[in-house]
Amino acid sequence: MDSTASLSRIGLAGLAVMGQNLALNIAEKGFPISVYNRTASKVDETVHRSQSEGPFALTGHYSPRDFVLSLHRPRSIIILVKAGSPVDQTIAALTDHMEEGDTIIDGGNEWYQNTERRIEQVGQKGILYLGMGVSGGEEGARNGPSLMPGGSFQAYENVKDVLEKVAAQVDDGPCVTFIGQGGSGNFVKMVHNGIEYGDMQLISEAYDVLKNVGGLSNEELSGIFYEWNRGELESFLVEITADIFKVKDELCGEGELVDKILDKTGMKGTGKWTVQQAAELFVAAPTIAASLDCRYLSGLKEEREMAAGVLKEAGLVEGMGFVKSGVDKKRLIDDVRQALYASKICSYAQGMNLLRAKSFEQGWKLNLGELARIWKGGCIIRAVFLDRIKKAYQRNPNLANLVVDPDFAKEMVQRQAAWRRVVGLAISAGISTPGMCASLAYFDTYRRARLPANLVQAQRDLFGAHTYERTDRPGAFHTEWTKLARKGNAGVGALN
Amino acid sequence: MDSTASLSRIGLAGLAVMGQNLALNIAEKGFPISVYNRTASKVDETVHRSQSEGPFALTGHYSPRDFVLSLHRPRSIIILVKAGSPVDQTIAALTDHMEEGDTIIDGGNEWYQNTERRIEQVGQKGILYLGMGVSGGEEGARNGPSLMPGGSFQAYENVKDVLEKVAAQVDDGPCVTFIGQGGSGNFVKMVHNGIEYGDMQLISEAYDVLKNVGGLSNEELSGIFYEWNRGELESFLVEITADIFKVKDELCGEGELVDKILDKTGMKGTGKWTVQQAAELFVAAPTIAASLDCRYLSGLKEEREMAAGVLKEAGLVEGMGFVKSGVDKKRLIDDVRQALYASKICSYAQGMNLLRAKSFEQGWKLNLGELARIWKGGCIIRAVFLDRIKKAYQRNPNLANLVVDPDFAKEMVQRQAAWRRVVGLAISAGISTPGMCASLAYFDTYRRARLPANLVQAQRDLFGAHTYERTDRPGAFHTEWTKLARKGNAGVGALN
Repeated sequence: MDSTASLSRIGLAGLAVMGQNLALNIAEKGFPISVYNRTASKVDETVHRSQSEGPFALTGHYSPRDFVLSLHRPRSIIILVKAGSPVDQTIAALTDHMEEGDTIIDGGNEWYQNTERRIEQVGQKGILYLGMGVSGGEEGARNGPSLMPGGSFQAYENVKDVLEKVAAQVDDGPCVTFIGQGGSGNFVKMVHNGIEYGDMQLISEAYDVLKNVGGLSNEELSGIFYEWNRGELESFLVEITADIFKVKDELCGEGELVDKILDKTGMKGTGKWTVQQAAELFVAAPTIAASLDCRYLSGLKEEREMAAGVLKEAGLVEGMGFVKSGVDKKRLIDDVRQALYASKICSYAQGMNLLRAKSFEQGWKLNLGELARIWKGGCIIRAVFLDRIKKAYQRNPNLANLVVDPDFAKEMVQRQAAWRRVVGLAISAGISTPGMCASLAYFDTYRRARLPANLVQAQRDLFGAHTYERTDRPGAFHTEWTKLARKGNAGVGALN
Repeated sequence: MDSTASLSRIGLAGLAVMGQNLALNIAEKGFPISVYNRTASKVDETVHRSQSEGPFALTGHYSPRDFVLSLHRPRSIIILVKAGSPVDQTIAALTDHMEEGDTIIDGGNEWYQNTERRIEQVGQKGILYLGMGVSGGEEGARNGPSLMPGGSFQAYENVKDVLEKVAAQVDDGPCVTFIGQGGSGNFVKMVHNGIEYGDMQLISEAYDVLKNVGGLSNEELSGIFYEWNRGELESFLVEITADIFKVKDELCGEGELVDKILDKTGMKGTGKWTVQQAAELFVAAPTIAASLDCRYLSGLKEEREMAAGVLKEAGLVEGMGFVKSGVDKKRLIDDVRQALYASKICSYAQGMNLLRAKSFEQGWKLNLGELARIWKGGCIIRAVFLDRIKKAYQRNPNLANLVVDPDFAKEMVQRQAAWRRVVGLAISAGISTPGMCASLAYFDTYRRARLPANLVQAQRDLFGAHTYERTDRPGAFHTEWTKLARKGNAGVGALN
């Protein structure tokens, strides 16, 4: 066994691409690291990469025991394996050799309650635990991800110096903060992913309208997204979208690759969980839900082709294009930009309010402004406008909804005419833009002092005696609606 | 103890209004019944009602033992208590005195997995079990509900004669059928409730557009809903809506009561479960989800009033009304009718597809046409057009979606212009009709052979190496998008 002097600062177990990249990132930042994987070849691969990309102070280990004993105490070990039982297996293998005060950090997309179960479990041995969301994909892991560690504050303190160096750096600090107790780190990452689904859906709708209603070419689309990336929409997803439209189809030799990609989208569990949690907490998240629905429906490619045939009398014939004659391209482009931005704000409002509701339920005391800050760099949803969200919550930590922050409210009001034009145009063209529609419906419902929900309450009281409240006096009321309605209305014979 | 000759045909435990009414319904149909409740006064109340509304062959019992022993063997006992632990407590109290071959029937809105757990549990004593959805509210329970029993087929056979007499009767039989194994009866009732939420939301949106955009009075609204109830929209919910608009505010002395009802809607768990199960099974159910979201947002009355103030520059000033000048009332009314009908079909399509997905997952072999049939009477969503849904599934049990059934497809095509006009008008008026929007977006997404999901797949491949498929050849592909896009594009300096 090595002497204390040569023990590693930190360990990382699980060397798929994400794990390798994060380990190399840590090593590159000057923290000696030990790595371990059940399959020995992954260890060799990582050591080899450390040599060629470094050389860095990275040592490979082939048994859990050697790996654990190679670490400086109190030990901190990041694990990056598939969520679920592989995490449990890895924890079991490692904790056999770990001691009181050591820390395990799970960097996977884990269901937050699994993390809470594990906190309890390893806690019985005095071992500390963090469930840490890691966003940024493979590239982010290597060069600076956004990190969302939640669980034991002491565990966070033990690795804070490492995480702050390894995370993406933005103007106001590293993209990492202690999220809160329990499974809060995983939950925040889950909602981040839900927001990411929403962003991708909204961008695809902007593309749809510009291409299919506006008749724009891929070259024009690329130019527009590059231009948008210089303004209020500046973000990783807008930037890569501009890139995507430029890539030629090298396999076929003509046209752009994006046109040859099958329109069936895959997905992982985090988007689904976000929608389910929103329902659980009575939080409206229709834009995020619409993005999920579109992924489900995209998967029904054969059914959709059949439906397009059956419903072709619709006058919106697929293949002939939806292009509207007489559309002012320049104005359409500007309108779509505004619609995309306004829709995006509503989607973030939904995600933030879901986080707040969960924080309240769990007592996590999430700092929404700080979450917006650590998403400014490293992660998939990184964007300039997250700085404005951060400031909105700094101004008013109890902000009920992003759309009523004075700055965002002003922007919503300025953009709503364009937004309504785009959604209306899409509907008349047979495209419907589900995400933008959902955002607009959310906005219009939230900003109305009086909704038609009075009728729903009357119906519920009529058939279920659920009672109702009144606008003009307190108390719960029940009415014999049918009896009163039909009193003296014997002439209404068509009732049944 | 009574002699065998005087033993009751069936028992019912749990004598809140629903339980009392169902017991009286059973007794009235000629089946001697024993009733029991933990609180003795409820037993007396039921016996009293049986005397005054009958007299019927109904006997009250004050202990679980006397109650159980008063029943003919094999015994069948319906329990109607609050879902969750009260059901477990009631089962425990009763099964102590029950014997092999006896049956328990839970008529509450129970989570289907709780029923499956109880099937196992009482099965260990040889007791049979049904989880039975009961719809129709208090009035339906008394005069003929729609019944959705699932679980043990033998248990169903044991009470089939009773249930078929007690259920609502329609042209093609009683509104009851054996749903399937396990918790299928509860699951079907859950989706029924989700559909009910959707129907109520869509009706409230029709009301909203007619009132706030069309400027219609309550009197006009009542007349329109009565008229609609003579056509394709004929249904319980449309009928009661017509009634509701007629009821005067007797407390205040002027105007109609509906205008005084607070626009905050309550809800129970079944709608939430429907949305969560749709996500779990990758089934798009946006109309049902929108109805839930509107209930959540309706609850934020104070926030909405505040938001209406902050966003009043929107040019859609609350209180001044959204009425559009120059709206052709007659055409608007006709358009709204068509929009409501088309939106409703999409909502039912979602519910039916959720049922099919669950049936497939669980091996329940649900008969969708038969489910539509037993909803034709008794329940809250009873409607003439359920007969058409029944026939659509009879024509083609494997129908992928209601909207591609030849008859419904024709109707959708005929109504879509009006539908788009209404949704477009609502959006421009600042109302947005979330449910109708969601249905239209669902329709437009489902009926498109090519969606913009190709862009989403390209994005996922770019940042997560998730790979993509192509339209023109099989296989999974991965592309180095960024490298290719920026090859020779050094001039695009604005990228970051």
